[in-house]
Amino acid sequence: MISWNNLDTISAYGELRKVTPVNLVEAMTGEKGAERVGKYSVPMAAGLTYNYGAKQVDDEILKVLAKLAEETQLAEKFEALYNGEVINTGEKRMVLHHMTRGQLGEAVTADGVDKRSFYANEQKRIAELANKVHSGEITNAAGEKFTTVVQIGIGGSDLGPRAMYLALENWARVNNTFKMEARFISNVDPDDAAAVLNTIDVEHSLFVLVSKSGTTLETLTNESFVKDALKNAGLDASKHMIAVTSETSPLAKSDDYLEAFFMDDYIGGRFSSTSGVGGAVLSLAFGPEVFARFLEGAAEEDRLAKNCDMYANPAMLDALIGVYERNVLGYRNTAVLPYSQALSRFPAHLQQLDMESNGKSVNRFGEPVNYSTGPVIFGEPGTNGQHSFYQLLHQGTDIVPLQFVGFQNNQMGRDVVIQDSTSQQKLCANVAAQIVAFACGKADENRNKNFEGGRPSSIIIGEQLTPEALGALLSHFENKVMFQGFVWNINSFDQEGVQLGKVLAKKVLAHDTDGALKAYSELLNI
Amino acid sequence: MISWNNLDTISAYGELRKVTPVNLVEAMTGEKGAERVGKYSVPMAAGLTYNYGAKQVDDEILKVLAKLAEETQLAEKFEALYNGEVINTGEKRMVLHHMTRGQLGEAVTADGVDKRSFYANEQKRIAELANKVHSGEITNAAGEKFTTVVQIGIGGSDLGPRAMYLALENWARVNNTFKMEARFISNVDPDDAAAVLNTIDVEHSLFVLVSKSGTTLETLTNESFVKDALKNAGLDASKHMIAVTSETSPLAKSDDYLEAFFMDDYIGGRFSSTSGVGGAVLSLAFGPEVFARFLEGAAEEDRLAKNCDMYANPAMLDALIGVYERNVLGYRNTAVLPYSQALSRFPAHLQQLDMESNGKSVNRFGEPVNYSTGPVIFGEPGTNGQHSFYQLLHQGTDIVPLQFVGFQNNQMGRDVVIQDSTSQQKLCANVAAQIVAFACGKADENRNKNFEGGRPSSIIIGEQLTPEALGALLSHFENKVMFQGFVWNINSFDQEGVQLGKVLAKKVLAHDTDGALKAYSELLNI
Repeated sequence: MISWNNLDTISAYGELRKVTPVNLVEAMTGEKGAERVGKYSVPMAAGLTYNYGAKQVDDEILKVLAKLAEETQLAEKFEALYNGEVINTGEKRMVLHHMTRGQLGEAVTADGVDKRSFYANEQKRIAELANKVHSGEITNAAGEKFTTVVQIGIGGSDLGPRAMYLALENWARVNNTFKMEARFISNVDPDDAAAVLNTIDVEHSLFVLVSKSGTTLETLTNESFVKDALKNAGLDASKHMIAVTSETSPLAKSDDYLEAFFMDDYIGGRFSSTSGVGGAVLSLAFGPEVFARFLEGAAEEDRLAKNCDMYANPAMLDALIGVYERNVLGYRNTAVLPYSQALSRFPAHLQQLDMESNGKSVNRFGEPVNYSTGPVIFGEPGTNGQHSFYQLLHQGTDIVPLQFVGFQNNQMGRDVVIQDSTSQQKLCANVAAQIVAFACGKADENRNKNFEGGRPSSIIIGEQLTPEALGALLSHFENKVMFQGFVWNINSFDQEGVQLGKVLAKKVLAHDTDGALKAYSELLNI
Repeated sequence: MISWNNLDTISAYGELRKVTPVNLVEAMTGEKGAERVGKYSVPMAAGLTYNYGAKQVDDEILKVLAKLAEETQLAEKFEALYNGEVINTGEKRMVLHHMTRGQLGEAVTADGVDKRSFYANEQKRIAELANKVHSGEITNAAGEKFTTVVQIGIGGSDLGPRAMYLALENWARVNNTFKMEARFISNVDPDDAAAVLNTIDVEHSLFVLVSKSGTTLETLTNESFVKDALKNAGLDASKHMIAVTSETSPLAKSDDYLEAFFMDDYIGGRFSSTSGVGGAVLSLAFGPEVFARFLEGAAEEDRLAKNCDMYANPAMLDALIGVYERNVLGYRNTAVLPYSQALSRFPAHLQQLDMESNGKSVNRFGEPVNYSTGPVIFGEPGTNGQHSFYQLLHQGTDIVPLQFVGFQNNQMGRDVVIQDSTSQQKLCANVAAQIVAFACGKADENRNKNFEGGRPSSIIIGEQLTPEALGALLSHFENKVMFQGFVWNINSFDQEGVQLGKVLAKKVLAHDTDGALKAYSELLNI
């Protein structure tokens, strides 16, 4: 039997608050440090490794975290989730994004349909369309191939797919699977769409309209913007657009689209990169085989997340260490620092994934919780960040836990030797150096040059950022966020916090305002 | 006489900790709210307005903040700074970035040179070069015009100039001042340079190498990468490269460059967007007149920052409210939320500006401070963020102060009417709605749909994002960060926190490692 309880009622949590904290400087200095790095390491999918040697934990603390995992029934809750229980209780929905890349447990049926077959079939239909576009079976009215794909979507229909596209763009180019350039239009700011339209050749562009409900205001507005542009170019918009939506949305059966692909209410926007939301644009850009490899990496990582043994379950372990940092050590933020330019927008995706899922103050039953939940997530790629905000991370008055990501090899194979090392070696040397600098610090009599150390980090290391590795990375963080939501006893799958702004914006546009709302509307000349 | 004292020795700070906090929900609801919005507003340069109606302050708190400003001698300290006192005491340097756009006080001489003349002359030399490139007086070896400018730099030589370029790119296109497309190479990850080189036409590209010291490893490595590419294309690299550096750097007199432009040690990287660091790339991209307009906006805003009266000094006011939020209310972060797609990378620039300047734990004399200093800064453009991390901002367990930016009009003039409003109107309606939603909240019996409110924000509003408005925005935040550094009694102009990582990275590359550093190096296969 699963029972849902607040964190502060869990006995292991009481124990966790009493453990002796780890002195990271001491623990990581000298040969003990090397031992920790060797020992606190767990394999992930696609050849990745999650290393937590520089986290503020030791065997004792890990033991309590394992108890916490057991007492909060993390493995059982995940099992219930992938077997189709209604885990998104607020919206009374199942949570099935794992099924877009495999089946972890029992078959799940909804509306008389086997959901794994449904998602797999949509993936197949997308693959067929992509192949036809690539082969020239589907072309523009002049019979010419489409060369560009433009995703129109916002939030989960933008950040995840965009981050994944950027992560694989150069990999695809050097591996000869690059099929079409992708662009993205998201913001309701009309300059966003105008700028993209100014720099593409609309005649050879295929647009992917992505909105689960078919009613997202930004997306419909941008669709209209694009349709005007197509019309002005003398083109038939319906021959340049496909839709990714739910079967019940107004877009589903419309003649305005070449084709419509489906997702459903069991896939939250921020968890939709492995559904058609990411599938259409990524399959068109890189070919369906690359998208399939990405899904395989995610599926393999999902299987690891089933493991009841915390020590062999990287997502669960990462989640629990994060809870210790947030609720016992009192840290407020997490910085995501990928040492890979290809992951330049991966932190922005994780920012949505984590903050929208776990930025909640009430538990699954709508009762206020009296402990901290999701942290603020931010980050930029290294080494760039080193020349920017790392100053605060090293010497600021708050401690910020760090999540590094690094790869032994770059994606494109080109490199240059300067001062006896390649750029890739410099990149890797920097991430190794930063972990140790943050953990160990360095005493200096000049206090301005003194580094306290004691700043915890973990790193995910891989051989190269391939489609499989990217899928595994994505899945790792999705599952980490899910496990943390379980520990905090919150619903990680709704987002009621976005509603009030929508309601008030409608009032402004209807000129139905008073007080401060009216005053701001006037200042903004609406 | 100026005296430098820790914040916790200031009597107004003691008073500030005892003020009655503002109940923002109450204060902002009904007609009182409208009054606050009207009253708590101060003009900035270039037609901008700083509105702090939705900040957690009232007349009483503002009075104490004004005392704090006086007691910490903010206006006097700024005066000392722009008159050439050695304010960067750690590095024993003057702080003269304001002089790149005007002279606020007395003439300042260093090394026998009048500094205002020096910076103005470099701006003039850059303008001459840019005009020659645009007119075709300076061309590639084949006598063809350069069409692309590529900045090679990292940190302050990248984030600021890149954010400014993106902010004005579309404005320049529609105002017919767009001269050359700009690209940026920063990361030591070799895929960064390779990806940029893959998508430009090197034969028609002019590279701007930016490094004050001339020794920044990332930048020299990327220069070498680019030189190889030029050589492989049969081109003479020295005819495709200019340098922006200090007169004493190894790059200054090298034959490797078409021309070298100079900055100096009195301009920190993160404050260098208005020097040649931003000037070369922006003048080449948009023409020197646009860059001059940008400087004018910054200079006009600088003059406002001289004002002793806090109520008429937006940067000082913003700084002081921020100190109240950080040190009395205990907030840890600030989110920067520009409702303008053109400002997509402006938050990344502010992240460096603020976190690298004020992420310090020791005062100007090297003594540890026992209060919080600079916050974590993050942000993305609205409305995109609304569909991402705003959930946590509205309903998370931590309160995050918000800095909105909005403009009445978009830059490109194209728009579309959907549901009786333009996209620009929707954009503005959303920012107005968000401010009120965050401040006032909305009670709901369903606690999951309940909004506590009480989440403070300010907004900078302008008519349009022009070069002048951008300059004013940039200056506002530079001066805000400076004033906060004064209040915290820290040196905002050095960055010793970046040194240890550099030292350890060198050890890794020299294989001079042991312990944890050796272990991580092995995992990363260096």
